[in-house]
Amino acid sequence: MGLFSKDIKSLDDLFVHTLQDIYYAEQQIAKALPDMIEKATNRDLSAGFKKHLEETKGHISRLEEVFRMHGHTPKGVDCPAIDGIIEEANDIAGDVSDKSTLDAALIAAAQAVEHYEITRYGTLIAWAKELGRPDCASVLEKNLQEEKATDEKLSKMAMARVNQKAA
Amino acid sequence: MGLFSKDIKSLDDLFVHTLQDIYYAEQQIAKALPDMIEKATNRDLSAGFKKHLEETKGHISRLEEVFRMHGHTPKGVDCPAIDGIIEEANDIAGDVSDKSTLDAALIAAAQAVEHYEITRYGTLIAWAKELGRPDCASVLEKNLQEEKATDEKLSKMAMARVNQKAA
Repeated sequence: MGLFSKDIKSLDDLFVHTLQDIYYAEQQIAKALPDMIEKATNRDLSAGFKKHLEETKGHISRLEEVFRMHGHTPKGVDCPAIDGIIEEANDIAGDVSDKSTLDAALIAAAQAVEHYEITRYGTLIAWAKELGRPDCASVLEKNLQEEKATDEKLSKMAMARVNQKAA
Repeated sequence: MGLFSKDIKSLDDLFVHTLQDIYYAEQQIAKALPDMIEKATNRDLSAGFKKHLEETKGHISRLEEVFRMHGHTPKGVDCPAIDGIIEEANDIAGDVSDKSTLDAALIAAAQAVEHYEITRYGTLIAWAKELGRPDCASVLEKNLQEEKATDEKLSKMAMARVNQKAA
């Protein structure tokens, strides 16, 4: 973005742009997850990442469905936010020497990714409704619910570590 | 990060690093908000951003308190995630020509910022508890609750737009 000044003239343009943003983001997440699966030492965490990789592929397909429903060809657009979040995840993972601490860092990194997706899907759903497209909102809602469920699972894993230490 | 390989050897190191990350992030947010206040045309949105700027200054003070409680000097560390989120907010705001659409874009950008903070504070609170520092967790919890309240207010503003269109 930013190359063509003032090229978003309506909420519809903004909706399509943000669809392109999350479409790019989901693809980057699908590329980043195999490395996270490999690095995780906790078995539940590794299995959770594997499951989420499959879900992410489903999210990409649903986004392609929304593009088509709204009369657009699926296309990604640069998303400095997700690039920054993933860059930070890679940096921190490369800096942690202890295995249990690395798992904690991976949970945190994955939750940062989930929260980015949760906020973007929440926004897209509100805009789809504002644009009179509850059908698009309904497809996007499925992705949102899966992202929220993943974030909750990650929170439970983080709390399980706390309870384990307290025991 | 990334310059000194494997320099995070424990959860305590990771906790301090992430404190530094959110400390930098809160400072960048405090710098970005005046521009968002100026761009917002909806009065409630502009007032909400002003209030959040004051809260953000309070969050920075509370983080300084946690640094000291934990025996560290307050210090920021580069955070590519928040840099990316703010860069995206600036790019999109510069690309939107319609005022009502610009407000929608500003709400979305602010929610992306809030969700980044929510995830980081959630993580820091879990780690503070795991490290046996419920006192630090309790101070961080105050920031988390204010970020969540801000995000909810922004969601309500987004939904008010939907309801207004439907009316």
